[in-house]
Amino acid sequence: MNKSNDIVSVVMGSDSDYPVMEEAVKILDAFSIANEVFLTSAHRSPTRTSDFARKAAQRNVKAIIVGAGAAAHLAGVIASQTPLPVIGVPIDATALHGLDALLSTVQMPGGVPVATMAVGKAGAKNAALLAVRILSLNDEELRQRLLTYIDTMSQEVEKRQEDLLQKIRA
Amino acid sequence: MNKSNDIVSVVMGSDSDYPVMEEAVKILDAFSIANEVFLTSAHRSPTRTSDFARKAAQRNVKAIIVGAGAAAHLAGVIASQTPLPVIGVPIDATALHGLDALLSTVQMPGGVPVATMAVGKAGAKNAALLAVRILSLNDEELRQRLLTYIDTMSQEVEKRQEDLLQKIRA
Amino acid sequence: MNKSNDIVSVVMGSDSDYPVMEEAVKILDAFSIANEVFLTSAHRSPTRTSDFARKAAQRNVKAIIVGAGAAAHLAGVIASQTPLPVIGVPIDATALHGLDALLSTVQMPGGVPVATMAVGKAGAKNAALLAVRILSLNDEELRQRLLTYIDTMSQEVEKRQEDLLQKIRA
Amino acid sequence: MNKSNDIVSVVMGSDSDYPVMEEAVKILDAFSIANEVFLTSAHRSPTRTSDFARKAAQRNVKAIIVGAGAAAHLAGVIASQTPLPVIGVPIDATALHGLDALLSTVQMPGGVPVATMAVGKAGAKNAALLAVRILSLNDEELRQRLLTYIDTMSQEVEKRQEDLLQKIRA
Amino acid sequence: MNKSNDIVSVVMGSDSDYPVMEEAVKILDAFSIANEVFLTSAHRSPTRTSDFARKAAQRNVKAIIVGAGAAAHLAGVIASQTPLPVIGVPIDATALHGLDALLSTVQMPGGVPVATMAVGKAGAKNAALLAVRILSLNDEELRQRLLTYIDTMSQEVEKRQEDLLQKIRA
Amino acid sequence: MNKSNDIVSVVMGSDSDYPVMEEAVKILDAFSIANEVFLTSAHRSPTRTSDFARKAAQRNVKAIIVGAGAAAHLAGVIASQTPLPVIGVPIDATALHGLDALLSTVQMPGGVPVATMAVGKAGAKNAALLAVRILSLNDEELRQRLLTYIDTMSQEVEKRQEDLLQKIRA
Amino acid sequence: MNKSNDIVSVVMGSDSDYPVMEEAVKILDAFSIANEVFLTSAHRSPTRTSDFARKAAQRNVKAIIVGAGAAAHLAGVIASQTPLPVIGVPIDATALHGLDALLSTVQMPGGVPVATMAVGKAGAKNAALLAVRILSLNDEELRQRLLTYIDTMSQEVEKRQEDLLQKIRA
Amino acid sequence: MNKSNDIVSVVMGSDSDYPVMEEAVKILDAFSIANEVFLTSAHRSPTRTSDFARKAAQRNVKAIIVGAGAAAHLAGVIASQTPLPVIGVPIDATALHGLDALLSTVQMPGGVPVATMAVGKAGAKNAALLAVRILSLNDEELRQRLLTYIDTMSQEVEKRQEDLLQKIRA
Repeated sequence: MNKSNDIVSVVMGSDSDYPVMEEAVKILDAFSIANEVFLTSAHRSPTRTSDFARKAAQRNVKAIIVGAGAAAHLAGVIASQTPLPVIGVPIDATALHGLDALLSTVQMPGGVPVATMAVGKAGAKNAALLAVRILSLNDEELRQRLLTYIDTMSQEVEKRQEDLLQKIRA
Repeated sequence: MNKSNDIVSVVMGSDSDYPVMEEAVKILDAFSIANEVFLTSAHRSPTRTSDFARKAAQRNVKAIIVGAGAAAHLAGVIASQTPLPVIGVPIDATALHGLDALLSTVQMPGGVPVATMAVGKAGAKNAALLAVRILSLNDEELRQRLLTYIDTMSQEVEKRQEDLLQKIRA
Repeated sequence: MNKSNDIVSVVMGSDSDYPVMEEAVKILDAFSIANEVFLTSAHRSPTRTSDFARKAAQRNVKAIIVGAGAAAHLAGVIASQTPLPVIGVPIDATALHGLDALLSTVQMPGGVPVATMAVGKAGAKNAALLAVRILSLNDEELRQRLLTYIDTMSQEVEKRQEDLLQKIRA
Repeated sequence: MNKSNDIVSVVMGSDSDYPVMEEAVKILDAFSIANEVFLTSAHRSPTRTSDFARKAAQRNVKAIIVGAGAAAHLAGVIASQTPLPVIGVPIDATALHGLDALLSTVQMPGGVPVATMAVGKAGAKNAALLAVRILSLNDEELRQRLLTYIDTMSQEVEKRQEDLLQKIRA
Repeated sequence: MNKSNDIVSVVMGSDSDYPVMEEAVKILDAFSIANEVFLTSAHRSPTRTSDFARKAAQRNVKAIIVGAGAAAHLAGVIASQTPLPVIGVPIDATALHGLDALLSTVQMPGGVPVATMAVGKAGAKNAALLAVRILSLNDEELRQRLLTYIDTMSQEVEKRQEDLLQKIRA
Repeated sequence: MNKSNDIVSVVMGSDSDYPVMEEAVKILDAFSIANEVFLTSAHRSPTRTSDFARKAAQRNVKAIIVGAGAAAHLAGVIASQTPLPVIGVPIDATALHGLDALLSTVQMPGGVPVATMAVGKAGAKNAALLAVRILSLNDEELRQRLLTYIDTMSQEVEKRQEDLLQKIRA
Repeated sequence: MNKSNDIVSVVMGSDSDYPVMEEAVKILDAFSIANEVFLTSAHRSPTRTSDFARKAAQRNVKAIIVGAGAAAHLAGVIASQTPLPVIGVPIDATALHGLDALLSTVQMPGGVPVATMAVGKAGAKNAALLAVRILSLNDEELRQRLLTYIDTMSQEVEKRQEDLLQKIRA
Repeated sequence: MNKSNDIVSVVMGSDSDYPVMEEAVKILDAFSIANEVFLTSAHRSPTRTSDFARKAAQRNVKAIIVGAGAAAHLAGVIASQTPLPVIGVPIDATALHGLDALLSTVQMPGGVPVATMAVGKAGAKNAALLAVRILSLNDEELRQRLLTYIDTMSQEVEKRQEDLLQKIRA
């Protein structure tokens, strides 16, 4: 995997979801994983959604990240039409603060899995990191970069501790 | 409407939903409205679901009642592929007691409406009664039977009052 | 239906609900469906509410869209006094973010249906679109306009994809 | 108050609510307060409900206790048509475990108060005790019985402590 | 009641609750009901709270309105130490948006009632209106003013309808 | 601490809470910590509750474990009248499944802490283990027994793994 | 992947979780994917948990399925110590009906992803199916079996429709 | 305790939590209790977290206050690796308004207690006050200061009453 023609798709139901889903794109770019942004709605463009889902596997897409808000059906609808891993990102887009999107995404009935992440930006970032974990199962070089990323996160905590203590003392 | 070839469809995602959705069938039968029971899953049989939704209007279906539990996408998925009124019945099928099905059904984004009913049997019954209200807009005879039904409900309250008072006094 | 004397009513419990319910009016206007805005409160003006509900059918009203917040009884109270289809729009008007209005609207007991939409503007828009679906059951020309609307929604997704990609690349 | 012709009404939306509302009747009987059980539904018998509410004050009713489940509109609907104190008891009657009835009862908009109690039997009992507190504002003898009741509750805690300790030691 | 020496107390747990509880004071003032504002915390000043509760009845207080946020124990704690009607107003004061205050106030165990109102300003206003309903049970003149208030609310809806229609047309 | 005259109190609002709170007693007994069971209600026996809370510190009580359900005020009310650590155990005693007790116990306003545990038996057990952790701060021998307990828990996981694998293979 | 030495681990926090997690084992067995059942608790056996997580990748584990209830930290704790994909299954094990386990599993902060499934058996089944989707990215034969599985699910819906209709007619 | 070498640790998962956790530091400073601020993440720096937890007891730390948001595992993870009392402060850091952090912190399974406080600043303040209550069990002088603090809180309520009344009259 992660050869030049392997792709991770970042799909969203509305262009207003992009500021959230951009977190996924940033991680994929940082790991040099080819990615594409695709806009389609489970409800407003169902044929477009089906076409995308049914053809993704043959286009060398390896994982599909899907962000949606409200009654967030998009991840489940795509997962039902592809054998690829589908990663859902619930988006806080209504008065109910993302609880609707979370339950609509995660409570999939047995048979069709959606790998659900946290509501919002943390979820979008982690969706990409899950894709990295999946792709690195067969890409030792990517695995090494993932391990470095994990180490760096840990070191950054120590740095932030120092910054925080300085700020407190000041 | 309500001519012999007009149909209300009662769709459900799992045969385990039938004891709930049967309440809709009972009402439709009581009003002599032709109806059909159709089993299809948004996720396990997406093509079957699309085929059903896309062809319903031309088969003289006038309203589609859809029951589903968990991440209940079925009503929304059908509504996105038909111009007919779609009536959603959330079913209590998971540990979350139907809150997941309710939010997945009702929180539809702008553009594709699902007429959502209460969770469970009351919702299934009311789904059929909404179909009756819709069909009776152009069927004066059916409107009269609906008005009789409404009157009878009211009278039954008075009867039950008497039964209750007798039981209390006994 | 949709003859010049057919009406869809847009009812709300408070004038502060109008910015939400306006979404319904816009859709009805766009589909050239005659509509009226009516303000009445289930609790502050119960007689006015009863009068409205009881006379709607004979005034050629074909569907009643009702927006209300908090303990949103208005849709249920109207539905109990008319045989017309009643469409409820829960409004986020309290600290509980519309969950109170949603449950008060959707959890109707068996016998009296309220076709419940999503909380807020998406719900108001969809309420009108449900009315269009209902009216188009007997109005082939309206059905055609609805199908065009559905097609346009789908095409707009493609356009927005292009705009989004341009924005990302810029 | 509490003269022979003063009444507290115990109203409920369904005869299946009686096992809960019976707790209110028991307390009223224990305090020798005249009471009546009345069955009416906000939705299935709206005229009966209005008639009851509008005439209660002139029938010497002093407080109206109202139990209802699901989208529990009954207490609010009655409160909107009487100047009497209305006490609401939410009943756990659906998959949502009474949260729907609680929010539908308590979240009344400004103008029409419903004195809301806990969901279920504790709420029904307390509804009657609130009626006792209200009636005892002008009935010194009733006030004394209420104070005795409060004292007895406290003493019973001590007795139960002894029983519990005996059970533990055994 | 409502003689010059009768009082309704408006109690709150924090001075930051006053902007909400002021709605109760406004109604009591509008009905010329003598009232007092009292600040005490169930947790920070428990003795002060007990003293207040235990002496209220003999000071001619007829009803105690209590606003509190978070784990809102104040209404329950006062109700346990007085035979007077206690009316609770949950206040939205934490990240949980008043759900904590609502459940802490309404879910009283059997034996000690708290008449719970909606979260926030609507609840504070209704708390005072419930006090008016209670006091008017024995004050015919107050009952007349309450009936006038109820009529005025209804008429105001009609006026607001006209204003809204003018605004829409403009 | 943990000398013969040191005590941990296990307080509860109702004798029906004992099957849950017994889990705390079992742990205290297993660690040979003197303990007492005390029944008192925040609402039904407020004076008894105050007396208990105000005298606990001088009776060599070192920690107070408090179980209560519904609007669970008991832990907060006790904490407001003692400088001792108070540990709250929310109990699932109503239709709302302990969410009411949890929020009533944990959401204490600033100034008066209640150390809140999980709803139910796990919470009661952990309440006692927190008391052990507190008492062992100044009792090296108790600390050693706590460390042994912690080790044993870990070893038991390994044993259960073996049992589980045997059961699976069988 | 899916060579004889590739493994999917099925981890759980308590042996009482096995009846749920067995659904994952069944799917893995049905797809002939080598799997192991491992019992460890995030809280009761933290060292055992760390050892497992840190060594999994070098033991040819390709995905770790983790079931846990209550404050379900196990999936997150394992994910923080391995670069492998971790799939979380929230288990309904407390009074809060799995909402605690769901939020504890899914709401991971940015940096460490857990692929969260539905609460309970459907989630356990889908966890295994997600592992199959991941492993089949590099195993064409497994992909074919997955596609067959997906087809069979769809066909089974049709069969169940026939069975249901027979049952209804009978 | 509270000798110069005794410490209360204030741990948090992110430097963005400091504005909340600062409330704990302020209280500890006000009571002249030595304290330290420590930044570590359960997920991003698990080894750092383990090292901290395992060494805390031997460094004379007497209580560990832990603030975390989202799937807040930090308090539980630390509690599983120390015999010290661990006090958890859920932080409102996601779309779900701290409900996720609350349930992740409080719903600990039996065996490993976390003393959970309210969401946010009130919780952070109370976490420190619980530490003071614990330390004062063996420090009579600290107990006196705690009693003074409790008295002062009560007196401040009276002062605020006067200020409020002046503001109202003005």
